[in-house]
Amino acid sequence: MTRQQLIDNIRRKQSFLCVGLDTDLRKVPAHLLNEDDPIFAFNRAIIDATAPYTIAYKPNLAFYECYGLKGWQAFERTVSYIRENYPDQFIIADAKRGDIGNTSAMYARCFFEDIDVDALTVAPYMGEDSVTPFLQYPGKWVILLALTSNKGSHDFQLTEDAQGERLFEKVLRKSQQWVEGGQSSNGEIVKSSNGEIVKSSNGEIVKSSNKMMYVVGATQGELFRDIRKVAPNHFLLVPGVGAQGGSLEDVCRWGMTPDCGLIVNSSRGIIYADSTERFAEVAAAKARELQQQMALQL
Amino acid sequence: MTRQQLIDNIRRKQSFLCVGLDTDLRKVPAHLLNEDDPIFAFNRAIIDATAPYTIAYKPNLAFYECYGLKGWQAFERTVSYIRENYPDQFIIADAKRGDIGNTSAMYARCFFEDIDVDALTVAPYMGEDSVTPFLQYPGKWVILLALTSNKGSHDFQLTEDAQGERLFEKVLRKSQQWVEGGQSSNGEIVKSSNGEIVKSSNGEIVKSSNKMMYVVGATQGELFRDIRKVAPNHFLLVPGVGAQGGSLEDVCRWGMTPDCGLIVNSSRGIIYADSTERFAEVAAAKARELQQQMALQL
Repeated sequence: MTRQQLIDNIRRKQSFLCVGLDTDLRKVPAHLLNEDDPIFAFNRAIIDATAPYTIAYKPNLAFYECYGLKGWQAFERTVSYIRENYPDQFIIADAKRGDIGNTSAMYARCFFEDIDVDALTVAPYMGEDSVTPFLQYPGKWVILLALTSNKGSHDFQLTEDAQGERLFEKVLRKSQQWVEGGQSSNGEIVKSSNGEIVKSSNGEIVKSSNKMMYVVGATQGELFRDIRKVAPNHFLLVPGVGAQGGSLEDVCRWGMTPDCGLIVNSSRGIIYADSTERFAEVAAAKARELQQQMALQL
Repeated sequence: MTRQQLIDNIRRKQSFLCVGLDTDLRKVPAHLLNEDDPIFAFNRAIIDATAPYTIAYKPNLAFYECYGLKGWQAFERTVSYIRENYPDQFIIADAKRGDIGNTSAMYARCFFEDIDVDALTVAPYMGEDSVTPFLQYPGKWVILLALTSNKGSHDFQLTEDAQGERLFEKVLRKSQQWVEGGQSSNGEIVKSSNGEIVKSSNGEIVKSSNKMMYVVGATQGELFRDIRKVAPNHFLLVPGVGAQGGSLEDVCRWGMTPDCGLIVNSSRGIIYADSTERFAEVAAAKARELQQQMALQL
């Protein structure tokens, strides 16, 4: 999916809501456990109910891996189901992968060729050559961790270097230079008119905001302003609205751009809002509530 | 496996060699592709041939995930095979996982309960609450990324803060305080006689060097001295000897401790040393070469 297609979907549906499919068999309604594939049955019901209100889905691999083969099968089925029935949905595999170059290339092949999701969350700790293999797929997105939603974000991400630049700012700044647009891999780094760092080679502009997004937790509040100073135009994946306590209004106030620029995720607040046979219709109601709040912000 | 058991295995076998099972069907000998489960067939042959010379095996999940269900199956079979036939081998799942607390807990359950490996590589970027769920399993180890073997390690890991402490040093230092030993979770932080940071509560010493190891790339050379200043006693997982160009001698000179304290990994240099039907016996020869060099260092 291109950036423009994503923006068009957001405008058309008046929503930037992503539902996190963190499916845990200890929490799903009991009647589903009789199904052959309870994980997929749960996901399908949630997707069918919420799709009118969402523009993205985000299965987190931890919740599938822990069920071994059956889990991996349910994950693949879920992605196929969305592709076949809701082709305008942006599918994010939340896996936080990253390794040395040739190994990252294997992960990239898995998620971008075999399973064919739109985007993959990637961890930045190992630096450029651990991330660039994921950037080799036209139409596919890397969502790099920047400032995460959890308390532990304070351990390293806010550490200032001798010049006062915090680690998350360094991640945002440096990573924009890693984007290769095919032939423009060794282009000159320039700033575009809106302050975004781009590469220019032979006059061709390569924008990392067409390839790369960043994870910024909703709980980070005013720090969104600092994010926007370094990444004025990039889409941000924003978890933590709902169960983790982040405020949608604050996120929009400090993080929204003319193109929206936000994908806000809610998982437990929607998918586990009800644990009876009404779970899907309650999930739909919760999703609609959030979508209506989002429509006011757009 | 306890630290003492690992040390005993190293002394008995005069080896601290780990073979990385980065099994790629595009590289394995062609005759194996006729097998029902070529990945497992390759792994089994490599394990049988090299086990006399190794004390650990390290499958990297990227190489299994990319084969979907069949890959996950081969990974599980490989771990079971080692457990059943070579119970003194230390099994490391190289997955570099890490997420918010409840999600890390799912990953931990998967790898430490369902699949039952001895150790898991974990990424530190998201801080304490993303790592502590992995520390809740007696006898299981967390191997935290510290200073990795790849070129991108220079992007963030060497960044100095205003006091001159580099990010990898901060990871080493802070993480030692995260280790909980059951009841000693809120103990006082003290230094033991060899400089190691430990927790003491009601007189009970909890050593992170019994729960935690760190990844330090063989390519990092003299930086091992700086690692040892902050982590004098911890085991280090050392990839990058072989294909990535690291030197075993340098690693031992600057990284070895009285308890050895090193697990040195080689993957491509052993498992792809030969691509004919002799692949396993050549792998054995390469492993034996490395083990003999290691015996001289111990």
